[in-house]
Amino acid sequence: MTQTVTFCFDFGSPYSYLAYKNLNSITEIGANIDLKPVLVGGIFKSTENRAPLMIPKKFAYLAKDMARWSEKLAVKIKMNPYFPIITVPHMRGAHVAKKMNLLDVYTEKMFDAIWVKGLNLNDQIILSEVAIESGIDGNDFAEGIMSDEIKDELKQSTQFAIDNGAFGVPTFYLNNEMYWGIDSMKFLTDDLKK
Amino acid sequence: MTQTVTFCFDFGSPYSYLAYKNLNSITEIGANIDLKPVLVGGIFKSTENRAPLMIPKKFAYLAKDMARWSEKLAVKIKMNPYFPIITVPHMRGAHVAKKMNLLDVYTEKMFDAIWVKGLNLNDQIILSEVAIESGIDGNDFAEGIMSDEIKDELKQSTQFAIDNGAFGVPTFYLNNEMYWGIDSMKFLTDDLKK
Repeated sequence: MTQTVTFCFDFGSPYSYLAYKNLNSITEIGANIDLKPVLVGGIFKSTENRAPLMIPKKFAYLAKDMARWSEKLAVKIKMNPYFPIITVPHMRGAHVAKKMNLLDVYTEKMFDAIWVKGLNLNDQIILSEVAIESGIDGNDFAEGIMSDEIKDELKQSTQFAIDNGAFGVPTFYLNNEMYWGIDSMKFLTDDLKK
Repeated sequence: MTQTVTFCFDFGSPYSYLAYKNLNSITEIGANIDLKPVLVGGIFKSTENRAPLMIPKKFAYLAKDMARWSEKLAVKIKMNPYFPIITVPHMRGAHVAKKMNLLDVYTEKMFDAIWVKGLNLNDQIILSEVAIESGIDGNDFAEGIMSDEIKDELKQSTQFAIDNGAFGVPTFYLNNEMYWGIDSMKFLTDDLKK
């Protein structure tokens, strides 16, 4: 039976982007990916964890570590000049995209806009443009991200991660096991092969 | 010319222990190790970082992650039942051992006592026994860890780490590059081979 890995991510997290670009290490084993957009700010708040940004020396090291991963995976990434991106509408938008069967393309376009193109995704007009590029009607997107249904979807996916032990992103689940951080993907792929 | 890797560690840190047991991945490339005992509590305080223990979900995950590393490296480790160990005298003791050219054996015995034998290293008598096993006279040890000279040595090594960007342990330095965490050892060994 095909195994499914749940991938919890937030567009504002550079390691979520790097992990996203490394998902082929999972799919090439034959496993499926269940993309689960969550709000990492909600996870931090619930668990009393803090973003690396809050610890200046950790944030300084993050740039170095990102460059190392970029080289290792041969994946382009640059720190977004508008970081941090407040991703509430972006993550709600992912649930709008999911309802329209456009989550794959929306995820790709949004990560690219933030971590490759370095666009100002705190600007709601640019956010809307990325949604439209993904094939979502601009009005549908604007209404969708303000609807109670979509707000609830994001709350539920974030709560799923919290209930299952997450304290940050990227976080993966395989059966009842949790894997946190891009570094843990080696353990995940090892387990998939067992 | 032989390259030297500076290894900053605290006995109370399980990842310091795992990294210590993985130092052969560095030495087998032909590099030397400079053992630098530091006080991670001092680093946390200075950088406003927090121990994983402070974030319950992170601490719960740590046990899982430790087990994965244990299997991967084929290194025995179990969570010390007296964790957290308040390591001020232990780390001062490392500087006493260093002066006596006994740092290697002291480091080995102390890590083993905490992370393999699961001894109560918050008990000063057991601490003293580990020092004696390492070949340090009990009185010399007791006097040494209370001396201003040794207190200063530990402060200086901790400050070295802080000044060079550390926000936790294990932290490695190679030339002007910093590597944080056992996960970063793959980048360190890659760089040693360049």
